[in-house]
Amino acid sequence: MKKSIGAKTIIYPTPVLIVGTYDKYEKPNVMAAAWGGISCSRPPCVSISLREATYSHGNIKHQKAFTLSIPSKDQAEEADYFGIVSGRDEDKFASTGLTPVKSDLVNAPYIDEFPLILELKLVNTLELGLHTHFTGEILDVKVDPELTDSNGNPDIEKIKPILYDPSGAAYYGIGELVGKAYTIGKKFKD
Amino acid sequence: MKKSIGAKTIIYPTPVLIVGTYDKYEKPNVMAAAWGGISCSRPPCVSISLREATYSHGNIKHQKAFTLSIPSKDQAEEADYFGIVSGRDEDKFASTGLTPVKSDLVNAPYIDEFPLILELKLVNTLELGLHTHFTGEILDVKVDPELTDSNGNPDIEKIKPILYDPSGAAYYGIGELVGKAYTIGKKFKD
Repeated sequence: MKKSIGAKTIIYPTPVLIVGTYDKYEKPNVMAAAWGGISCSRPPCVSISLREATYSHGNIKHQKAFTLSIPSKDQAEEADYFGIVSGRDEDKFASTGLTPVKSDLVNAPYIDEFPLILELKLVNTLELGLHTHFTGEILDVKVDPELTDSNGNPDIEKIKPILYDPSGAAYYGIGELVGKAYTIGKKFKD
Repeated sequence: MKKSIGAKTIIYPTPVLIVGTYDKYEKPNVMAAAWGGISCSRPPCVSISLREATYSHGNIKHQKAFTLSIPSKDQAEEADYFGIVSGRDEDKFASTGLTPVKSDLVNAPYIDEFPLILELKLVNTLELGLHTHFTGEILDVKVDPELTDSNGNPDIEKIKPILYDPSGAAYYGIGELVGKAYTIGKKFKD
């Protein structure tokens, strides 16, 4: 018998997405977002949700563009910091010593030291309540070449990303391989 | 120097969300969705993206409701199967021996054996291209009581969920604790 715990924002896992934007003076900022995910395959899109109170929210509205930088577990402290303070109050690149790089395709900065980068053009804005849900079309993905598999695609076991647990407010690493998709479930097919 | 690999749908991690719906004859169906995430804190919402071709897409349009059942790693084979076949062709509950339970609050079924359940009322539908982006308001979360922490909240280390790697098309477990959120990043604060 399951126990009801009320209407809480809990799913497993949620990502740790570092949203990169320029403000109106072209100063780079980053923030951490766990509310988001891939939202379409064609065109390829990611949607993220930000509170209007954040500095990044205004930046996305202004620039119609953002990046996502995905940290490895060695960068969890920096990622957490990006979610603690506002870009209005602190220069988060200066505080961490990380390097902003202007995206090739959109007017937004990414973090040079982070292993996996997405460049996105804003295509939809949806007001849901406390959060605004921004959908960006993925224009390019960039990866550190030494962190790819034999096909040249990002290798999760080399990138070692982290996930966010919204119930316990904690970060976890990636565990062991459980199985290949579209494969391990075939045993149930009629 | 990063390598550009083009516009691919890759972020780490993505969830394995099992979407539960009734069809117009009230027959229960489930499918696997990795495109989705939490999208608002107040009201609490989750957004998921489904292709129009799926049986579940029509069911959500008809019922304006769905559930999400989150598998543990011991249920990865069943979760994978739910993404391989269509509910038009096979009765996925019969094939796996899992038990559909009608949600208390919405007209949609969840999987009794899965550890964490969300019940959602459809509040927004957004056409993005190949995928339709459905936003549901979370009306309740249900959890197996033995899988909670000392505060009665879901415990990720007991639930042992899985994640989906869209680059390698594989499932992984949860790894070790990396750190507490809003804590490990404080060292960078001015």
